[in-house]
Amino acid sequence: MSPDYNFTRASLLYEGKAKKVFEVKGETRFLLVEFKDSLTAFNAQKKGQFSGKGELNCSMTSKIFRFLETRGIRTHLIQPLSPGELLVYKLKMIPLEVVVRNRVAGSLARRFEKEEGESLESPMLELFYKDDKLGDPFINDEQALWLKAASLDQIQEMKTAAIKINAALKEFFSKMEIDLIDFKVEFGISDELGLVLGDEITPDSCRLWKKGTNEKLDKDRFRRDLGQVEEAYQTVWSLMQKEWREL
Amino acid sequence: MSPDYNFTRASLLYEGKAKKVFEVKGETRFLLVEFKDSLTAFNAQKKGQFSGKGELNCSMTSKIFRFLETRGIRTHLIQPLSPGELLVYKLKMIPLEVVVRNRVAGSLARRFEKEEGESLESPMLELFYKDDKLGDPFINDEQALWLKAASLDQIQEMKTAAIKINAALKEFFSKMEIDLIDFKVEFGISDELGLVLGDEITPDSCRLWKKGTNEKLDKDRFRRDLGQVEEAYQTVWSLMQKEWREL
Repeated sequence: MSPDYNFTRASLLYEGKAKKVFEVKGETRFLLVEFKDSLTAFNAQKKGQFSGKGELNCSMTSKIFRFLETRGIRTHLIQPLSPGELLVYKLKMIPLEVVVRNRVAGSLARRFEKEEGESLESPMLELFYKDDKLGDPFINDEQALWLKAASLDQIQEMKTAAIKINAALKEFFSKMEIDLIDFKVEFGISDELGLVLGDEITPDSCRLWKKGTNEKLDKDRFRRDLGQVEEAYQTVWSLMQKEWREL
Repeated sequence: MSPDYNFTRASLLYEGKAKKVFEVKGETRFLLVEFKDSLTAFNAQKKGQFSGKGELNCSMTSKIFRFLETRGIRTHLIQPLSPGELLVYKLKMIPLEVVVRNRVAGSLARRFEKEEGESLESPMLELFYKDDKLGDPFINDEQALWLKAASLDQIQEMKTAAIKINAALKEFFSKMEIDLIDFKVEFGISDELGLVLGDEITPDSCRLWKKGTNEKLDKDRFRRDLGQVEEAYQTVWSLMQKEWREL
């Protein structure tokens, strides 16, 4: 795509907790995503922000998605635009969050009274139904079908993709001396491309611990009032630039 | 089995919320189950009882399990002993509750803000991990494996059995002019028989609505303080005796 081609925002399509999504003038196949500086947790009951957070998350998503493409995973990314803005394919989003866990943390630790950090023998998958009103409930496959969130084939395809993404991300973060504890991804459907990874992959959507420690470099610093939230995001981005310069 | 053979209680093996389980003197393959008069709900935070409830639930389980055997479903039932007592095969219980739903009710209605009574296009399955301390949490298959509650084959076999049990129970209750809304079953492993239906099937473990109405003939009368709990259980047992005399 020609870098001097101009993509101009048309109407705001949707504003979420961390992003705004715009139509693109004269290009119905694309969308423009603007990453916001806001931080939210616990279904937006807790709110915060720091300046530059949107740009950081945008840059990180862009680099990670480019990496995933090199590993054969289709993403919605077309190209970064200005700082904090991505041009992406327009997808029909599947209203599910697919969580992949390598180690026990967060709700899994809480619900089953397990120690955070305990290893899982194999990656564990969970589905959550995206519905703010319902508090994004944890669901099983049967409920996803009942809710018409996805078809059985789509669920299977998302699970397969999520496991592949996990393997790629572990490689990606391992080079940065970071342990990938868990992460959340969202998928959508493109008429041209089929099932495609959408949304973002950032310290908002991953648990990232400094290798061999439980030092958190992700949104848990905000959720749990651990301080140095901005510094953690900066650290992850610096390591990413250093270790994945070529992307 | 000779009816004059004597099965004598040995030591109490386990006392649950609704049943006591005893070893059988000189018969390590069998257990004796005594149904209690107690009623509990909300993880035993709410407690009640009525005289004769244990005998009713014992008689109903016995009749239903005999019916299921005629439909090719293996159960732990050997024979009723005195009123309120069953002789059963000793199983290694799988710590999962398998819930089958034909219509929306209970936690499904609450979690997804759906109307109780709404039909499901096909029966829906849910797994809950039996652990009082954790409040019997809803889990997915991956978590069941992680918790080592069951193997993948066992989960698949339980699901298949649960769907078969559902079809049989719908037939059973339909003859009694009762709609089967949902129910919970538990399975165990016998060295001789493989996967076997254990525990009980009673108005404690099913939602039963008078046909074509939402009049409840089950433990929801107790949970929700609807009154006439004992009468509802008596009604179900009377209809069972009338319509399934032959069992």
